[in-house]
Amino acid sequence: MNKGITESFLQKEFTTEGGFRFDSAQVAYKTWGTLNKTRDNVILICHALTGHAAADEWFPGLIGKGCVADPSKNFIICINVPGSCYGSVGPWTIDKKTGKPFKSNFPLITIRDMVRFQQLLLDQLGVNGIELVIGGSLGGMQALEFMIMDERIQAAALIAMGKSHTPWAIGISHAQRSAIQSDLKWKNGDYEKDDAPFQGIAAARMMAMITYRTPEDYNRKFGRKLQNEDGQFQVESYLNYQGEKLASRFDAFSYVSLTRSMDTHDVARERGEAEKILSDINIPVAVIGINSDHLYPTKEQRELAQLLGNARYSEIESDYGHDAFLIEFEQLNNIIQPFFYEQKKARKNYDTVKSL
Amino acid sequence: MNKGITESFLQKEFTTEGGFRFDSAQVAYKTWGTLNKTRDNVILICHALTGHAAADEWFPGLIGKGCVADPSKNFIICINVPGSCYGSVGPWTIDKKTGKPFKSNFPLITIRDMVRFQQLLLDQLGVNGIELVIGGSLGGMQALEFMIMDERIQAAALIAMGKSHTPWAIGISHAQRSAIQSDLKWKNGDYEKDDAPFQGIAAARMMAMITYRTPEDYNRKFGRKLQNEDGQFQVESYLNYQGEKLASRFDAFSYVSLTRSMDTHDVARERGEAEKILSDINIPVAVIGINSDHLYPTKEQRELAQLLGNARYSEIESDYGHDAFLIEFEQLNNIIQPFFYEQKKARKNYDTVKSL
Repeated sequence: MNKGITESFLQKEFTTEGGFRFDSAQVAYKTWGTLNKTRDNVILICHALTGHAAADEWFPGLIGKGCVADPSKNFIICINVPGSCYGSVGPWTIDKKTGKPFKSNFPLITIRDMVRFQQLLLDQLGVNGIELVIGGSLGGMQALEFMIMDERIQAAALIAMGKSHTPWAIGISHAQRSAIQSDLKWKNGDYEKDDAPFQGIAAARMMAMITYRTPEDYNRKFGRKLQNEDGQFQVESYLNYQGEKLASRFDAFSYVSLTRSMDTHDVARERGEAEKILSDINIPVAVIGINSDHLYPTKEQRELAQLLGNARYSEIESDYGHDAFLIEFEQLNNIIQPFFYEQKKARKNYDTVKSL
Repeated sequence: MNKGITESFLQKEFTTEGGFRFDSAQVAYKTWGTLNKTRDNVILICHALTGHAAADEWFPGLIGKGCVADPSKNFIICINVPGSCYGSVGPWTIDKKTGKPFKSNFPLITIRDMVRFQQLLLDQLGVNGIELVIGGSLGGMQALEFMIMDERIQAAALIAMGKSHTPWAIGISHAQRSAIQSDLKWKNGDYEKDDAPFQGIAAARMMAMITYRTPEDYNRKFGRKLQNEDGQFQVESYLNYQGEKLASRFDAFSYVSLTRSMDTHDVARERGEAEKILSDINIPVAVIGINSDHLYPTKEQRELAQLLGNARYSEIESDYGHDAFLIEFEQLNNIIQPFFYEQKKARKNYDTVKSL
């Protein structure tokens, strides 16, 4: 994939929380619009599990003229996270010690590592201020950590996640990883690219597609209709298609690596009490839940909004479940855009007052 | 397993809806109590997906002195369904045509086939009347079909299922079958017993355990606690244990066969409109939902109760999700027992009036 993505290297070393050091890590990112003179008109978009830096492809309704992320006004950037298979350092990167790809020995990447990694690139690009960070699901986890770890953040939109990955969500990830690893082609974490555990990752994706959608959506779309004469239901054929589609575009090592990253998500880890940590954050935040999300239920976003020092909660009405954050762009714009402009205006007034 | 289970053969031929004929099918069943002179004091218990005829093991709180199914009053019977691996005819039965086990060529068994199979045994035992049929999940699907297919049924308790298997539930089954089949040890449906796809069925079970329980249950039980020093979460260790436990006791062919049976569940199939079919049933029914069941949500049981000619709806309050039907015995007894006695009394009064 190129899709306007820049592939580069971090100039400074990137060291994971676990202590693994990459001297010059590959980094893939895409930008839209122009950085202003004060280098602070930035909107940072964080991608989700199987996403990539070309956010205009999976967030089409949020990027463009008249959208929240408008390239005529802002410098927009999306950075591929480490552990992914879309250009940044990941399981297929060559381990200098062995001269071979890391594969399943790729070090654990925490959400905080993902933030640190992106910060290094933002530093390198000379970014002084980030007007807004947006993310849904894994992207939201990064955005939340960004608020804690990066003083440049002025506002945030957190969609469809919570203050930590719940045992429920960890269990779902674990079952999916087990499906991948039960495909003998996983070869104890040492498969070759052309002989990968395609069936395992397809089965994992099918499970995921259940947790991303809802009974109502499946009822409406498929009912009990058969796909063909040998008795296969349409929903089975749909899931096969979704499984194969992901297997053809995504790597199983990356799937295992990034779901593990999600499992590490916990704002409280080694910091104290979540309540205290979140209430200390005074950056304005739009926390957005999806009424039908049963992977990260709205309870988690309501809790976040309640605990954060300066947050408001909004809810997307949708039958699409968790996936609604990649579908309901009109609702997302209608929530995030007014919030964003209001925050910008408030900051401008504040700056004017300061300079008087 | 013996556990007091009788292993026998059907004297009459058993032919599936698809036209496959078993001349003398094996049947495993367990009984409690004594058949009365009129041979009509029967309570029939139908088992769920990975259940077996020893219902006292998985329904302990419903069978015994003072419970709904009281062996001092009733003749209680539970029959292992065809396709299972617990004694009745199934994938490891020898196909007379080939002299080898059926394995994945075992014919499709519909819910109606399961009923027909059990009817043959009940006929053989000379059963004239069935005071109550009880079943949850797959067991409930059988109980519902029994009401339509067997005039001996006097009352029924249907727990945690609906009028048909939804595309949502079919999708969940399909993802689980895919996990089994993505284990190369599945060997295109031709594995040997001692080299079975244990990892695949374990992964399938993990998925199932997610759909059987709830976020609240997992939160309470595990939180984000780690199991050991290498960073595994308790919930992962729990799911591994559950996966291995099922893999050691259940067969993958049977898992595929019985989940397919569940997918065929649809009272309307080749009969007309579900509304008409259900409203024509005037047998008294206790339909029971579980407030936290997200595999077969209460919407489905409410619908059943509304459509059936003579049904009442009750709800179990539980954090355990779908699994509550195998846990909340006190609540189940408190719902089914009064219902059952009331129906018995009403029938007795009716019989007295008739004989006057």
